Amino acid sequence: MCRWAAYRGDPLYLEELVSSPAHSLIEQSHCATRAKTATNGDGFGIAWYGERPEPGRYRDILPAWSDCNLKSLARQIRSPLFLAHVRAATGGGTRRDNCHPFTHDTWSFMHNGQISGFERLRRPMEAMLDDDLFNARGGTTDSELMFLLALQFGLREAPVAAMAEMIGAVEELAESTLGSILLRFTAAFSDGKSLYAIRYATDRKAPTLYASPVGAGYCLVSEPLNDDVDAWAEIPDGSAVTIGKDGIDVADFRPAKRDAVKPQRVAMSA
Amino acid sequence: MCRWAAYRGDPLYLEELVSSPAHSLIEQSHCATRAKTATNGDGFGIAWYGERPEPGRYRDILPAWSDCNLKSLARQIRSPLFLAHVRAATGGGTRRDNCHPFTHDTWSFMHNGQISGFERLRRPMEAMLDDDLFNARGGTTDSELMFLLALQFGLREAPVAAMAEMIGAVEELAESTLGSILLRFTAAFSDGKSLYAIRYATDRKAPTLYASPVGAGYCLVSEPLNDDVDAWAEIPDGSAVTIGKDGIDVADFRPAKRDAVKPQRVAMSA
Amino acid sequence: MCRWAAYRGDPLYLEELVSSPAHSLIEQSHCATRAKTATNGDGFGIAWYGERPEPGRYRDILPAWSDCNLKSLARQIRSPLFLAHVRAATGGGTRRDNCHPFTHDTWSFMHNGQISGFERLRRPMEAMLDDDLFNARGGTTDSELMFLLALQFGLREAPVAAMAEMIGAVEELAESTLGSILLRFTAAFSDGKSLYAIRYATDRKAPTLYASPVGAGYCLVSEPLNDDVDAWAEIPDGSAVTIGKDGIDVADFRPAKRDAVKPQRVAMSA
Amino acid sequence: MCRWAAYRGDPLYLEELVSSPAHSLIEQSHCATRAKTATNGDGFGIAWYGERPEPGRYRDILPAWSDCNLKSLARQIRSPLFLAHVRAATGGGTRRDNCHPFTHDTWSFMHNGQISGFERLRRPMEAMLDDDLFNARGGTTDSELMFLLALQFGLREAPVAAMAEMIGAVEELAESTLGSILLRFTAAFSDGKSLYAIRYATDRKAPTLYASPVGAGYCLVSEPLNDDVDAWAEIPDGSAVTIGKDGIDVADFRPAKRDAVKPQRVAMSA
Repeated sequence: MCRWAAYRGDPLYLEELVSSPAHSLIEQSHCATRAKTATNGDGFGIAWYGERPEPGRYRDILPAWSDCNLKSLARQIRSPLFLAHVRAATGGGTRRDNCHPFTHDTWSFMHNGQISGFERLRRPMEAMLDDDLFNARGGTTDSELMFLLALQFGLREAPVAAMAEMIGAVEELAESTLGSILLRFTAAFSDGKSLYAIRYATDRKAPTLYASPVGAGYCLVSEPLNDDVDAWAEIPDGSAVTIGKDGIDVADFRPAKRDAVKPQRVAMSA
Repeated sequence: MCRWAAYRGDPLYLEELVSSPAHSLIEQSHCATRAKTATNGDGFGIAWYGERPEPGRYRDILPAWSDCNLKSLARQIRSPLFLAHVRAATGGGTRRDNCHPFTHDTWSFMHNGQISGFERLRRPMEAMLDDDLFNARGGTTDSELMFLLALQFGLREAPVAAMAEMIGAVEELAESTLGSILLRFTAAFSDGKSLYAIRYATDRKAPTLYASPVGAGYCLVSEPLNDDVDAWAEIPDGSAVTIGKDGIDVADFRPAKRDAVKPQRVAMSA
Repeated sequence: MCRWAAYRGDPLYLEELVSSPAHSLIEQSHCATRAKTATNGDGFGIAWYGERPEPGRYRDILPAWSDCNLKSLARQIRSPLFLAHVRAATGGGTRRDNCHPFTHDTWSFMHNGQISGFERLRRPMEAMLDDDLFNARGGTTDSELMFLLALQFGLREAPVAAMAEMIGAVEELAESTLGSILLRFTAAFSDGKSLYAIRYATDRKAPTLYASPVGAGYCLVSEPLNDDVDAWAEIPDGSAVTIGKDGIDVADFRPAKRDAVKPQRVAMSA
Repeated sequence: MCRWAAYRGDPLYLEELVSSPAHSLIEQSHCATRAKTATNGDGFGIAWYGERPEPGRYRDILPAWSDCNLKSLARQIRSPLFLAHVRAATGGGTRRDNCHPFTHDTWSFMHNGQISGFERLRRPMEAMLDDDLFNARGGTTDSELMFLLALQFGLREAPVAAMAEMIGAVEELAESTLGSILLRFTAAFSDGKSLYAIRYATDRKAPTLYASPVGAGYCLVSEPLNDDVDAWAEIPDGSAVTIGKDGIDVADFRPAKRDAVKPQRVAMSA
């Protein structure tokens, strides 16, 4: 299980979520409480939006708690919209290309969860990607692949709908390939304007997701950042969260049924 | 352009090729003479055969000249068959998974060269791999992919013939996809028993390859390890070298014509 | 609290202690049970004796559990005498120079423990070193400094006595500088012939130390490597262990009283 | 020989010096022309001033040319005052703590040059430091030590005079310890308000230093960033440069004679 935190609102120093609170992301990386994996020592990453449309990004494979660069950057960078992640690898080696957040053009994405039997689904999932998205794949994680698939399914035009399409496609593929599906997915993503999150699992056991107002904005986290239990509202399984200039919105989320839909792409034969 | 050295014979400390000679691999990584790229600072790797059938391996992304671990290992490990490589990236990011030598079961492989237009060939080349070899792919280099394709084409049964098949298939694919082909390939590989090398290029400008007796064995290198010009025999373009228990053999090498041969595999649609 | 394992006996693959057992060092690095710190993700190291008098060494700052190089080396290297360590930093940044084992000529050393108020003792402790040992200091840990001080106090001639001198000197220094002393010290060290270990604390709360026969030899560990409680004998606080060609010996250990002894060296003024 | 660039003026994206120009620092790190060492592959660092009095900092030991984080940060961060450095190690291992810029409170410092016989001067130089500055030492380079000594000699109060004191003290120490002195020193440093640089060598062969107006500000570099030779004014050996809100000032620089001056501190005996 990974840990993550994301923020949208008036500009905030990243350290306000990443290193300062009682249960800051760095603290959580060392000693987690609610989640199953003891340690998130398999790398970390931050993506933030500043003056350019594309996010800046810093990722590394050291444990977050021992990275001086991360502490300095989090103390220095102030942003109205950022994502931060500490990783406990469930699959995909420990290397920078496998560290969240993933970015593509103006989009960023980070994820906590897993797909059962991914090793057998990986190749047909990759085959659904157009060449440009296929070539954009830098690592080997299921997370990055789901992000690229969401882009394939129209993330730029309809973010939440594209995620529903993507998960629907993965479920259908798992059913047909493995005969069953177990997918847990708690993710945050952004185009630099709005911040989105989805919590969904086929077995209703999606990793946790909490929201809280922070300063003049909202924060989404996998685990509360402090012990003020009243401050953190748990977002239920089967939800899509949108934080935009008009505040926070929580809607039902379910994968798109794709019965008649055929994947747009067939891998070319050599 | 990368640099490499390989040895087969009576057990030799790795440092005899890697760090001790005037133009040792580490020295070459810092300041190359015959080759085009100024520096080989994009990582390094060693693979050696000891008491087990599979090779040991150590790779890292630091420049070879600054890695204390490499110096200690090269000074300590003695082996009758080993490969060593310093990398100057032509494509594929700087990360451990992209560092040579690549290994698979008992096989090891390292390479110096490139394929023009690889970014457009990568996907159909990957599509030629069976699932197990596809899943064994850890990085993004053309080198690793050619190694896996050689395994696909029978490296275990007929090493040099499989390389000829592999290169023939890549040439055919490049012709049909790009309308032209430029491939330069100087590689060494081993199953732990014999040491093989191939020097071949479509434009007769393959990276250099030299052979020399060293102690009670033979050494193959991309660049001579000292200034004793008489000691190093240049292996001409279009050659396959085999060093086995009966000594060294150099034969002509050319890619297999594959006119009637169809790739065994078509990527499945999702 | 760090974790470590050491072995002396007939040659053994390092993986027998490092990665294979139920509670192998790598497993312990991820999830410790008896010790206080949750995770040992601040680097690791191995030192082993082979055909040369000086040990080979491999250290890195990644968590041990995610390092492919370590797994390959531990599987490949077989040695009659080796030390292995996973680190949870108590002081000194996460970098290779701060990873155990430390080595000097033919000697190797690794440690689990701490000195209260080390930040105030560090400078006068360094001042006790002769220039050559001072210049050999590569990192900032109390562990490396105690190793160098032991060399200063005659480790080469009388290993256990030199450790007693070193700890006595540190205690005296702490008393005079801080007015009190809290030192916990569980260390293993070797000259390539015998394997030594000491467990000692001023408050009788030294980190644990266990011994067990393993194959044709003995193993010393900070934590048992499996659940076979009968196999592991706890070495009591205040003990010095020596494993040599005649088997294992456990003796009382206490710091040397240094009343009349003056440090041999006064730092020169600039 | 290292390479560096520094800027003070209206806020500028770091990439304008670090990655964009024809001879950007990253490009120089790969292939240098005027300087002696072929490659600057031993790490890099940036320090920049933003909304806080202390600078932000990012350092790593990879070659600058292969670090995606550096490219992203340089593209994202805009600052009115920053320092950037690529390292070719002359002494001190390749590790983050040895990468420039060094920082202390609000100060930053980077350096190109060397002191002959530093290994024999290091200890008495460290002995001149007060405890707090001694404890701030994280690495082993002569550069960091000269920075800390400059702080010891009053960098905060009189920046250029403190550098003159520091160099005078090192020269005196070298004369008395080694019987001769060879020191080359081209450094930039800042308190977040003004940008300073010094070019000085005992043999008049200090590493080069150039200045040029860039946008609404000034840039100082070890090597010109483009081929527009008229744009870059070479700063002569024996100069101190100050870039403040009133523009650029170049003054003579020579070390302070310290005849009657005694170092403020005598290393305590243990």
